[in-house]
Amino acid sequence: MAQDEFAIIEQYFSNIGNSAGPASVGIGDDAAVVDTTPGNQLVVSIDTLIGGVHFSPDTSPADIAYKALAVNLSDLAAMGATPAWFLLSLTLPKFDSSWLSQFSNGLRQTADLYSCQLIGGDTCRGELSVTIQIAGTVPSDQYVTRKQARPGDLILVSGELGNAALGLAHKKGEVELPEEHRSKCLLALNRPQPRLELAIFLREFASAAIDISDGLQGDLAHILQASDCGARISRVAIPVNSWIKQQDAYQYALGAGDDYEICCCVAADFKTEIDAWNSEHPDCRLTAIGEITESGYFLRVGENLVDLITARGYRHFD
Amino acid sequence: MAQDEFAIIEQYFSNIGNSAGPASVGIGDDAAVVDTTPGNQLVVSIDTLIGGVHFSPDTSPADIAYKALAVNLSDLAAMGATPAWFLLSLTLPKFDSSWLSQFSNGLRQTADLYSCQLIGGDTCRGELSVTIQIAGTVPSDQYVTRKQARPGDLILVSGELGNAALGLAHKKGEVELPEEHRSKCLLALNRPQPRLELAIFLREFASAAIDISDGLQGDLAHILQASDCGARISRVAIPVNSWIKQQDAYQYALGAGDDYEICCCVAADFKTEIDAWNSEHPDCRLTAIGEITESGYFLRVGENLVDLITARGYRHFD
Repeated sequence: MAQDEFAIIEQYFSNIGNSAGPASVGIGDDAAVVDTTPGNQLVVSIDTLIGGVHFSPDTSPADIAYKALAVNLSDLAAMGATPAWFLLSLTLPKFDSSWLSQFSNGLRQTADLYSCQLIGGDTCRGELSVTIQIAGTVPSDQYVTRKQARPGDLILVSGELGNAALGLAHKKGEVELPEEHRSKCLLALNRPQPRLELAIFLREFASAAIDISDGLQGDLAHILQASDCGARISRVAIPVNSWIKQQDAYQYALGAGDDYEICCCVAADFKTEIDAWNSEHPDCRLTAIGEITESGYFLRVGENLVDLITARGYRHFD
Repeated sequence: MAQDEFAIIEQYFSNIGNSAGPASVGIGDDAAVVDTTPGNQLVVSIDTLIGGVHFSPDTSPADIAYKALAVNLSDLAAMGATPAWFLLSLTLPKFDSSWLSQFSNGLRQTADLYSCQLIGGDTCRGELSVTIQIAGTVPSDQYVTRKQARPGDLILVSGELGNAALGLAHKKGEVELPEEHRSKCLLALNRPQPRLELAIFLREFASAAIDISDGLQGDLAHILQASDCGARISRVAIPVNSWIKQQDAYQYALGAGDDYEICCCVAADFKTEIDAWNSEHPDCRLTAIGEITESGYFLRVGENLVDLITARGYRHFD
């Protein structure tokens, strides 16, 4: 039974993702070699998921693999990029062939689903953690950052916010979620969908974008800071499930993390294009929740304006 | 005092490495954007160093930063690549401004020394570990793998082997190293020099190369396996310090790790070029230790031939 680093890589991690991918040299050498394409730029990101911090110990290996890749894919989506390849650094407390099989199968399915090739990696012994470094491509200078939001831009979010946080709260026993919401919320927690279909839309129409990993309130604040402007958003406009609406539990949508939906800013001139997007993509609807202003950061709640200027999302070292 | 992820990245990790580097978008967005250069391929690698596994808890933060980057640079060197940029994922048990300052200063010095720009990253809370993903470039199709060694090729190694392992053994109290060897061995352990100067030589003359991270014996075996050939090496030819020679302690050079020297195979026709390299690079001498054969894997020790076919270097899951 394979127990050393090289055998683990060979047995579990070769041929993950499209084998006709961009790598001239893939897994099994000191480094991988990838072709770059003229007229494109490379978009790269790295994210680590740690057992007990980013996922609970009882999370299935396939779900861990899925999420580790999905959160990186979500970063690419927010930049307007198309996935190309990724590297994996996997730290495990001990050799466990059943765990590795499930993990590598989950990774393989996810890599196939999003057409992204595993081209290299590293395995170590230690506390369970998964680091994925991903690369995508974007036509030169069409990438989308957080920096170009302008007063008057509409603020849009994809999908529904708060489901993952609610799924986590249910799992922890903090809320008793009715059965009709459970599977959707647990799916949002364990299998967040990176919004890669939005990349083309963002490249064409968005002035700024971010993926919502730490909560809308804090992540939109990053756009405001990077773009040096303000925002006014409306709580009632935030797309949430009916339980959050009924319970007035918007903290799950505003202050909690793990949504991996996209928040973007689009000039109001593009309303027609937004409507066209929504009619063609009912599963990835964009909802306008407010607009970019010169300064300040406010949330309209009924007749009141709540000052969000000191709003903070989830911080890893708080 | 900065304590959250975003402030840590801003305060400690912005502007590390050449600011005129390849990134159009650097630290502070969902991902970084890098320009790719026509006629070049990208060479990418990822390596994780874990506290208590890859370095002892008393290692200085600057030495950890140095080594985390150096081991990745060493992978690039072995492929014949020139460093371009890197991403950092840093996991820390707690916020510690003194540790972070020393770590980021060490990283900055190393990045400057080897002209490699930090363009993005991630920080998490957990057991101390440092993952670096590095990218370099190589003129298209001039990369060097482990696969093309041919019978008759000379087997060469750079520098001196075993010093890092000996430094570690001394630190652990397993050997009493005479004072004249200590500083060199501890330097080899904490500040291994990635042999980037060799990249051009390898591109031009080497049929195969690997960086020696797990011990010569095991790492050369990787070349033999990938190239489907054998080797005969001579123990007396292995470049080691005088203590190893006197003590007949070649296990430090053969079976221990962390050398980060290069082992490469070069056709015997290029003896003149090897000599020219050595006279021009006295600090990065290449020493011939044997030759590639059709099959088998033997070490000459005096009059005897030791069969190394079952030889194994350090394995992370043994």
